Amino acid sequence: MLRLIHATDPAWGARAVEQLVPEILLDHAHLEKKAAAAAVGLMFRYPDQPALMTPLSRLAREELAHFEEVLAVLERRGVTFGRLKPSGYAERLSRVVRREEPGRLLDALLVAAFIEARSCERMQLLADNLTDPQLSKLYRGLLAAEARHHGIYVSLARQLCGPEAVDDRLPDIAAHEAEVVRALPIEPRLHSN
Amino acid sequence: MLRLIHATDPAWGARAVEQLVPEILLDHAHLEKKAAAAAVGLMFRYPDQPALMTPLSRLAREELAHFEEVLAVLERRGVTFGRLKPSGYAERLSRVVRREEPGRLLDALLVAAFIEARSCERMQLLADNLTDPQLSKLYRGLLAAEARHHGIYVSLARQLCGPEAVDDRLPDIAAHEAEVVRALPIEPRLHSN
Repeated sequence: MLRLIHATDPAWGARAVEQLVPEILLDHAHLEKKAAAAAVGLMFRYPDQPALMTPLSRLAREELAHFEEVLAVLERRGVTFGRLKPSGYAERLSRVVRREEPGRLLDALLVAAFIEARSCERMQLLADNLTDPQLSKLYRGLLAAEARHHGIYVSLARQLCGPEAVDDRLPDIAAHEAEVVRALPIEPRLHSN
Repeated sequence: MLRLIHATDPAWGARAVEQLVPEILLDHAHLEKKAAAAAVGLMFRYPDQPALMTPLSRLAREELAHFEEVLAVLERRGVTFGRLKPSGYAERLSRVVRREEPGRLLDALLVAAFIEARSCERMQLLADNLTDPQLSKLYRGLLAAEARHHGIYVSLARQLCGPEAVDDRLPDIAAHEAEVVRALPIEPRLHSN
């Protein structure tokens, strides 16, 4: 549904795995928690958009279930969940969001869609590169749901802001997302260079 | 597990039902959403308390599922979800939370416990007073989970802050909660006088 303009170097997966599996897992747990909070945040920012409520509530529940799944894997590996410096990806990506409505809602939904699309692309690379069967299974299991999520955000944007507005704005946000990813440092994060 | 010092007048249920079922349902939908957001908020405020993560994530998922359930009932009754002025209950109750740790965490958990306990008490009164079988069934269905939630918050408080600290602080918060409820206006809200 969304074409990512900048394709991640296939070597990203192998490097991520070799380097620091625990850090990727910890980062991943934080991302699921942040994805849930982002969906809940939109439900509060737009109380007068009833069409957002059920889809975003379901999406948030799914992200929280994934969060719990990753926490259980961390626990089995003896890694304690704790604070982690954010990669800066979501923060930089969100700078594209316009301050005035209706642009703000459209941009917020499309930014959320791109975060989900990029997470999904990275999870595929992890699933392909992880030799640990437990981890490979974890990522394959999460992929289907994550792939659905970006579609939900794009559909909501079309429904609430109109398909033309989405088609007009999507290329700008895609280009900005690609630039943000290219500028990120190489580090063991789901959203890194 | 928690004794509420001020018992709600049994007539509260009948009055609430007669008056404005749609407004109670809308208010209830908002409460479930806020309860989910409160749990997620604690997960972000305390990233270094791993013991909070799984229980609060599960609790948030359950609140979101209830939110969706109430939204479906609203939709079947032709009521559109939208903005609603908060009753002031949670805001006033939260004024008891101390600003410094470790008191802040303890108080936040106990305040959340009392919000859940009061919601549960009110849902029981609604279930008892609703003659509409669809609504009575809804509230009976939600009660068991809601009753569990206040226990989860108290258990987390005992685990993270120590049972003595909980026993010391609980009576103050119970008294404050009773005062807050007594001072609320009579209106068709889950948290009202």
